[in-house]
Order: sequence, then structure tokens, then C-alpha cells
Amino acid sequence: MRDVVIVGADMTPFGKHLDRSVGALGAEAVLGALKDAGAERSQIDAVYSGNVTGGMLVGQRAVRDLGLGGIPVVNIENACSSSAAALREAYVAVGSGLHNTVVVLGVEKLTALGGGPLPLDDADHEVANGQMMPAIYAMRARRYLSEYGLSPTDLAAVAVKARRHGARNPYAYLRTETTVDDVLASRPIATPLTLFQCCPSGDGAAALVVTAAERAPTFEAPAVRIRASVLHSGEFRTGFRDMTSPDITVHSAQEAYEQAGIGPDDIDVIELHDAFTIAELLYYEALGLAERGRAAALLHSGATTFGGSTVVNPSGGLLAKGHPIGATGAAQAVEIVWQLRDQAEQRQVDGARLGLIHATGGGLSGVDHGACAVHILEAPRKQVARG
Amino acid sequence: MRDVVIVGADMTPFGKHLDRSVGALGAEAVLGALKDAGAERSQIDAVYSGNVTGGMLVGQRAVRDLGLGGIPVVNIENACSSSAAALREAYVAVGSGLHNTVVVLGVEKLTALGGGPLPLDDADHEVANGQMMPAIYAMRARRYLSEYGLSPTDLAAVAVKARRHGARNPYAYLRTETTVDDVLASRPIATPLTLFQCCPSGDGAAALVVTAAERAPTFEAPAVRIRASVLHSGEFRTGFRDMTSPDITVHSAQEAYEQAGIGPDDIDVIELHDAFTIAELLYYEALGLAERGRAAALLHSGATTFGGSTVVNPSGGLLAKGHPIGATGAAQAVEIVWQLRDQAEQRQVDGARLGLIHATGGGLSGVDHGACAVHILEAPRKQVARG
Repeated sequence: MRDVVIVGADMTPFGKHLDRSVGALGAEAVLGALKDAGAERSQIDAVYSGNVTGGMLVGQRAVRDLGLGGIPVVNIENACSSSAAALREAYVAVGSGLHNTVVVLGVEKLTALGGGPLPLDDADHEVANGQMMPAIYAMRARRYLSEYGLSPTDLAAVAVKARRHGARNPYAYLRTETTVDDVLASRPIATPLTLFQCCPSGDGAAALVVTAAERAPTFEAPAVRIRASVLHSGEFRTGFRDMTSPDITVHSAQEAYEQAGIGPDDIDVIELHDAFTIAELLYYEALGLAERGRAAALLHSGATTFGGSTVVNPSGGLLAKGHPIGATGAAQAVEIVWQLRDQAEQRQVDGARLGLIHATGGGLSGVDHGACAVHILEAPRKQVARG
Repeated sequence: MRDVVIVGADMTPFGKHLDRSVGALGAEAVLGALKDAGAERSQIDAVYSGNVTGGMLVGQRAVRDLGLGGIPVVNIENACSSSAAALREAYVAVGSGLHNTVVVLGVEKLTALGGGPLPLDDADHEVANGQMMPAIYAMRARRYLSEYGLSPTDLAAVAVKARRHGARNPYAYLRTETTVDDVLASRPIATPLTLFQCCPSGDGAAALVVTAAERAPTFEAPAVRIRASVLHSGEFRTGFRDMTSPDITVHSAQEAYEQAGIGPDDIDVIELHDAFTIAELLYYEALGLAERGRAAALLHSGATTFGGSTVVNPSGGLLAKGHPIGATGAAQAVEIVWQLRDQAEQRQVDGARLGLIHATGGGLSGVDHGACAVHILEAPRKQVARG
């Protein structure tokens, strides 16, 4: 496998885009990424598109009017990690030499569902047992708080940080700060989780231009190298499951650190999958930032906000930026690319050189039939030299 | 890219599987393919799953109880070519050396939709203009018949052949023969297409085990080599479009022949995408079996049935075997693998050594935002030596 880099990145703001089709949203992000890269359309060999609810051929519909016809377009549907899985397919296609330069797209228009829940399949035993996502995460939250002597206030602090970060991000859906009191007073969803502790859904798109490292000088934007690209599914196990340890993330992160030849202490900035407040705490531990039971202490220490040792979700994360499912993984990558190129403006993590992206989804957070993708990205060489 | 082979293949019968979940159908096919290959589950590095209507994480649900946890599972949704595109992703992953042995799955449970039409998006301009698939193919049929002085009888002959082939196939949904008169007398769908000229939908699953050629001796089944693997999307064009030339198939086939270093005359057996009778005639020409306007003559000559020079759809094709969308491409591959291994029993094409698979889908048959995959497979070496 040859070295693979990202040379273009862009996204639409996340939120409600009632007047746009899913194809139009996707096209806007792809055009932005091509422009950022200074790429000609004729340089694009293939498109890898992540989407969940948009129906068939979403990728083709997004690029058909952009002059990107004829080439292979692969639509990938891996729940919350759809466009993160698309990034991995792109990494393989370019790394193997099959393609030189490809586009990764993540796009979702959840408002097209009319405000209802995601379509569920009652042949799925989790659905049949009422294990909706908020319920699953609420159970995990209760267990975690009980296990480590914590309180709902510790959870609320995650939402306060997310919204404080999101207030700095013009691409975020929720751009106002909040307080622990307001978080706890917001509408109960599944105790102990309140409304402000659950990510908003919405619409949006994000896109990347991925190429071989040796081709990077062809493009205008500085090249962000993909140091690790990992995808895992859940593991079948019998017997007791520790619901406070998201094993699929633990294993994906371990493999990513091995691929990159680094450890969690080397990471400067992370976009992780905080669909609910409790998720961020569990993932601190799963990604190796904190010992088991020490996540809340890490949060309260300030280590994961601006000025800390590993800034987590400078974009506001899913809790503030929003979670248009298929768009989320690619948008996390866009944020990390901007951070590593020193272009994140008022939410810039100073001197960020290594960034990690974590997107995961599926029942029981992937213990069973989930999907988890972890990528590690490295800042452009010139920035490394400057450091 | 190193050489890639198929060492395991199996499928469920196509039809109505009202008592099975989409996951259970997929699991059955995967187990069959693993057994055919004599593969241990621990040898499987990843799963590439094609599905359209089953919701999120269908591949994960299909393999979760089979001991195939933890590994990457990628769900691909490319309309009618979903599992053919999954085969291509598998080909790239193995050819590049990223993985050694992977499973390809195609699965669909259309009866879960309750008999209604496929979900459509009215932001799609073709849908908004009433261009449903039967209407599109009916327009193409009228144009083709008018252009070349043919009659509906010529179309009906395609259905008669398909059903005659399907009657030999225990995996086919429709296993009774029919006549030109019965085809023409069946219920009108979109003139000149009658019911028997439109493929039935239904449920089913098909799976393959794909590995590197150098690893083939590890497995029990003879290795069928992938000589070409091509995926195209539709091309944006302005101006008049010739609706009787499915350009996306023309271009995909040309590229596949180039990759394999052969021409259409070298192909012994084909599974092509006959969703409607007219489609088979158009694809004869697009695949290079006949000159423009000469497809019906080729059909009537017997060249594309048993005993002919290039047997087309020995399985019965979509018209008789059925078309559970996401399962179709993988099932076409299973049929060709069986043909090239001399295991197709009463529908065996004698001495078949090179086979072609064609799966295509999307609006206006891919002129616009469609997806088309063409693969060329080669018989195991020992069989070649025997010929």
C-alpha cells in the first residue's frame, strides 16, 4: 500500500436544509472539496459516498451534474460510520494503486423523513425489545454513574463543553452555549439523559479529495496524510457484557494506534462519536485517554477542551454540530483536516499535528452488529517542520 | 494488483421467504459459500455486502451469529448492481493485498415491503416525471421495435427462452415454461411490455468466498479467476440520447474486455441484467454479441440458448430466476461460478471456460445516474487443461 493523503475538504453547515435535495447537498460539498484541492473534475477516478436514508444511488445523484459521470461510484451504508467507511474504501482504492484520486462524500437529509424516527426493522431483536438508541445509552449511563460514584452533573458537563465548542463553529447546528443547570432541566428523554444530552439530527454533507502522496504536489491544498484507517464490526459473544466498555471502539483504536505506530498521548485533537453525553466519557476510556472510571475527571481537568492536552470535538461534536448520519464521518474528517492545516479559525487547536477520527454505530454501540471506523491523520509536512 | 479468485459460492433459492429475516437469508448463503470453499470462519478477513431495502447494517446482521464478528463489514447500496459492486470492492481489497480472503454477500427481502413499489424519492427528476422502470423500458422497447421493424413477438421470445432456462434451475422463482402467446396475453404493464416480460421481485441471498490466487490451494473448491472487474456510473450529457443504446453497459463491457484481453466471441456463458425482455436484446448489442438491430435475429438463431455459441442467462435470468435487487449481482456470479466448475447440472453449458456477469441499474438504465458492473470469470485451471 502506498501512502495516501487528503488534499481537499469542505462541508455544508449542518442543520435544516428544507429547500435542498440530498443530491444538491452532496454536490455542494463535493464542489467545495474540489475547489479546495484545486482539482479538475477530470482528475477524479471514483467516488465513495456514505448515506443511510436517501435511497438508491445517492452518490450518483450528487455528482451527476458536476461532470463526474462515467466513473465508478460506490454507495456505502454503514449506519453512523457510513462515510467513515467510505473514507476507508477510498484509502484502499488509492493505496492499492487502483485509483489515483477519488472523492469521498458523506450526505444525509434527515428532515426528508418528516421528523419521525429512523426506519427500524422489527426483525432486529434489539428493535423488537425496545432497545432504541437513547434507551441503550441511558442504561449505559446509569451503570457508569453507579459504578464510579458519579452524578448526572458529570454527564451534563459533556454537553456544556460540546455547546461551548459548537458556539465557535459556523458549521454547527447548535451555536449557543448552555449550562449544567439548563442541560439537566431540559426535557427528559431516557433517564438520566435529557434533551440537551442527545445529538440533534438534521441535514448536511461533507466531502474530501483523497490522492496518493506522490500526487499531492499536483494539488493546491497542503496534504494531510492518512496514518491509519481501520474498520471493525461487532463481535458475537456469549455471557455477560460490560456495557460501559464499547469493545468495538477499544479494538478499532488499538489497531489504529498500531498502524500509525503511535499511542493516545501523541494525539492532539480528536473528533469522536458523542451521540449522547455518556458516549463521550466511555470513548475517552476506549480511546485510551483515561483509565476506566476516570473519564469525568479528565473532562473536569480541562484536558479535552481548548488549551488542554488532547482537544476533543473542537467542532462541537455530534451534540452541537449535529448528526446527519451518513455525513458525520466525512464531516469529522473535514474538521480534523482543517485543524491540521491550521485553518480552524476561532476553534483552532494550537499546533495540532496528529488527529483522530472515531465514528461508530449500530445496536448496543457495536457490541453486537455495529460498525466502527477509526482514522488517524497527520499534519502537512511544512507544518511539521515548523513545529 | 495480484490475481484474485472465487473459491466458494452458494445461494438460497429466489422467491418468497416470508418466514425469514433479511439477516437469516444472508447467513444461509454465507454459510453455504464457506462450506463450499471448505473455509474456516477464522480465515475470513472482511465482508462486502450488497443490499438496497434492508436498512442499516444488513451485512453485520447477516454474519453476527456466524462467528464472523470483529472484522470489517462494508454495506454497499448501488441499486440493481449492489452486490456486483460489492464483488468489485472485494476484488480491490484482495488484489491490493489489504485482505487475503473475504466474503461477498448479496441479500434482499422485497416481500418485507408488503408488496408495494420500491421507495422512491420525488426529488429525483425522473421519479417526479413518472419515469418508473417499466415505463422507461417500454419507451425503449417501442423505439427499438419501430427502428428495426420488429414486433412484440420478438420481445416475447426473450421471455420464452428465460422461462425455459428457469425451468431447469431449482434456484429460480418461476420454474414453468411459457409460450409466445401466453406472454403476449399476460396482463399489460406498460405497452408493449406485458407481465411475463417484467422480472418478478421476491427474496433471496447469494454469497461468494474471494481470495488471492496464491491462496487458492488452501481451499477445497476449484478456483475461478476474476479476469476483469469494472464499475461505471452514468454520464451527464446534453442533447439527444439514443435510448436504444445503453451506453453505460457499452463502456463497462469494453473496459472489461480490455482488462481481460479478450473479446465478446471468447465468452461462453453470460448472466446479463434482463429486468425486462427488451433489456436482453439491447444488452446483446451493448455487450458486442450482435450488431445494432440484430439482437432479435441472434435470439431466434438459437445462439444464446443451450447448444448455442454464447448461452445467455442459463439460470433463467431476472425474468425467471427473479430479481431480489441486492442479491442479483452475487447470484449471477454464483451461477457463472457453477457453470465454470461444470456443476450446473441440467442447465450446464458444455465446456464453458469464460463467463461474463452484467448487473446494471438506475434511471434511464444508467444514461444519467445509474451504476453498471461487468465481471469476467475464467474456469479453473484443471478444467482448462482438460478442454
